[in-house]
Amino acid sequence: MFALGIDPGVSRCGYGCVTGTGSQLRAVAMGVITTSPADPLPERLAGLAAELRGLIEEVQPETVVVERVFFQTNVRTAMSVGQASGLALAAAARAGCEVVQYTANEVKQAVAGHGGAAKDQVQRMVQRLLRLPEVPSPPDTADALALAICHLTRGPRLARAAAAAAAGRAR
Amino acid sequence: MFALGIDPGVSRCGYGCVTGTGSQLRAVAMGVITTSPADPLPERLAGLAAELRGLIEEVQPETVVVERVFFQTNVRTAMSVGQASGLALAAAARAGCEVVQYTANEVKQAVAGHGGAAKDQVQRMVQRLLRLPEVPSPPDTADALALAICHLTRGPRLARAAAAAAAGRAR
Repeated sequence: MFALGIDPGVSRCGYGCVTGTGSQLRAVAMGVITTSPADPLPERLAGLAAELRGLIEEVQPETVVVERVFFQTNVRTAMSVGQASGLALAAAARAGCEVVQYTANEVKQAVAGHGGAAKDQVQRMVQRLLRLPEVPSPPDTADALALAICHLTRGPRLARAAAAAAAGRAR
Repeated sequence: MFALGIDPGVSRCGYGCVTGTGSQLRAVAMGVITTSPADPLPERLAGLAAELRGLIEEVQPETVVVERVFFQTNVRTAMSVGQASGLALAAAARAGCEVVQYTANEVKQAVAGHGGAAKDQVQRMVQRLLRLPEVPSPPDTADALALAICHLTRGPRLARAAAAAAAGRAR
């Protein structure tokens, strides 16, 4: 299992690639793609698209995990988050990757155990689960790693739940 | 002058290419790129991105004009409009085109004479200005043509205003 999490944004787009399952998770790449607010928006978006394409080509993930954003959250940055997520989703599909989306609440639930977890709580759980020497920084990187962890740990958990349900029905 | 207007949307993305200046405007291409709601979003976005790249390559516009969208307008479709606009802006910049954005109000002002013009009023003005046999349909096409017209007629108007202001200062 090899998942690339992407926390979409135009100024800062976090990414984190995680491999493994369950308690055997390992970060293989992480960082943040930035574009300069001094440049015109179309150029920034074209630059971000090129970086995302290059990243996916380099990392070759089986699955790309992109945060599913709702607009109520932050109207001021909503447009640029939407634009960046469009580029990420299109680049991943074009590269032939499986593409999945989770909401911030689903990620918090999977990583920290409850959907209302605080941001720094999630970041510390990411550090712990990946056995990193420190909390990943900037926060966009931690968020992207959390997306990948969510996908890798959620899958087996859902499979176990389905198996338990099937066993219950079989009784 | 050769401008390609793009009215961003994932289900229906209107485009309209207009050439000429002032009262000598002519539509050279118009239509709508559609993606099926039955397909997964990432594939739809990758398909839209490919169509937009192909369109820009075929039409070779000097300027690509994309509507500048605000999120207050329609929260339900805001995310997909943001995603589509990101793809359009990135594709245009990547192709080396000049890229400009106007708000719906600026377009209405330029095409119908006032920012509060009704949608069908703008559509009829597009038909009249381009001497088309009928109102362009679907509305996304008319909106895209209106964006291109806005850019082609606004430029000279702004230049005249600047010249008049300069003449005023020179007096």
